[in-house]
Amino acid sequence: MSSRVPQQERSRATQARLLEATVECLVEHGWSGTTTTVVAAHAGVSRGAQLHHYPTKTALVTAAVTHLTERRAAELRAEAAALPSGPQRLDGVVDLLAASFTGPLFVAALELWVAARTDAELRAALVPLEARIGREMYRLTVELLGVDERRPGVRESVQATLDLLRGLGVANLLSDDSPRRAALLHTWKRQLAALLTLESERR
Amino acid sequence: MSSRVPQQERSRATQARLLEATVECLVEHGWSGTTTTVVAAHAGVSRGAQLHHYPTKTALVTAAVTHLTERRAAELRAEAAALPSGPQRLDGVVDLLAASFTGPLFVAALELWVAARTDAELRAALVPLEARIGREMYRLTVELLGVDERRPGVRESVQATLDLLRGLGVANLLSDDSPRRAALLHTWKRQLAALLTLESERR
Repeated sequence: MSSRVPQQERSRATQARLLEATVECLVEHGWSGTTTTVVAAHAGVSRGAQLHHYPTKTALVTAAVTHLTERRAAELRAEAAALPSGPQRLDGVVDLLAASFTGPLFVAALELWVAARTDAELRAALVPLEARIGREMYRLTVELLGVDERRPGVRESVQATLDLLRGLGVANLLSDDSPRRAALLHTWKRQLAALLTLESERR
Repeated sequence: MSSRVPQQERSRATQARLLEATVECLVEHGWSGTTTTVVAAHAGVSRGAQLHHYPTKTALVTAAVTHLTERRAAELRAEAAALPSGPQRLDGVVDLLAASFTGPLFVAALELWVAARTDAELRAALVPLEARIGREMYRLTVELLGVDERRPGVRESVQATLDLLRGLGVANLLSDDSPRRAALLHTWKRQLAALLTLESERR
């Protein structure tokens, strides 16, 4: 079976190229401009290989969001590991998350969520994926902040932070909203720290 | 000139029908499924009349979002006027705003914001409109809450509320998020009340 390993490695590399090209095409051309043909060409992968790995546009885009969300979660863990401990950690974690919610993966996912509203096949594929990504982002945030979600108020504060960041991501779609976002998050970080400390003191 | 009045009224009625049909088509068919032909048919307006009033798709959709945002603001003022004064008022205002951010106008606007990312003509038309709507939503919220934005912290708290509601609107696109949203807003209302009271007591 050892002769199959290089083949498997080539397959994985081809898949990774296709999935990264999918997100890049969604960011550059939007949902309607992203065809499987355009993605294959952008990835430098033959049409046959693309169809072999991901036979439909829905299969391709859902695999792309799944794969890149997992990779982004791993990156966030690595970046968060480099943050200082103590009070500054919360600020750093919020900044890392805010960068994710204004980055290419968020933009690509938003293209899919909006397209799925009026595309039954895509919607059926995305509803469970959206729920899973939502749960994983919540768990990752709890982990990165190093808070105990069993404490009262922690769950709501973490969820509100993620919903706030999603709203800020949308506000950044057409124009650079970073000065307003930075000012707003400056205040939010203090509130979040107070909420998390407050609740832990109430134990 | 009095003979022109019925003509002007007919024009305004035709325009209103076209603009409402535009938002309905955006909600039902999304950006790519919304053509000026589909909108004219949905509004029961001749193609010639549609082209006379709104010669391009960009003109039609930007007029629609402008018109319906103004109408929604007037509705919000009327609905807020029926709210009790006192502490319950804040809860009612947040609920009214949350309903707007999960309603058809928000969905139609999001279709446009996302499409505008990759459509230069639409983007040029929407960037100033988005900024104006953002400012007006902020001012309306300050007014409905009856708070003084010159007090420290009020501006940030109101902005965070609107960004949070925008994020919650996106979370509601593909599946009914209302139980989670209600729980989260229940906590948020208490926090917002505390923030606004806290800041006013610091004066």
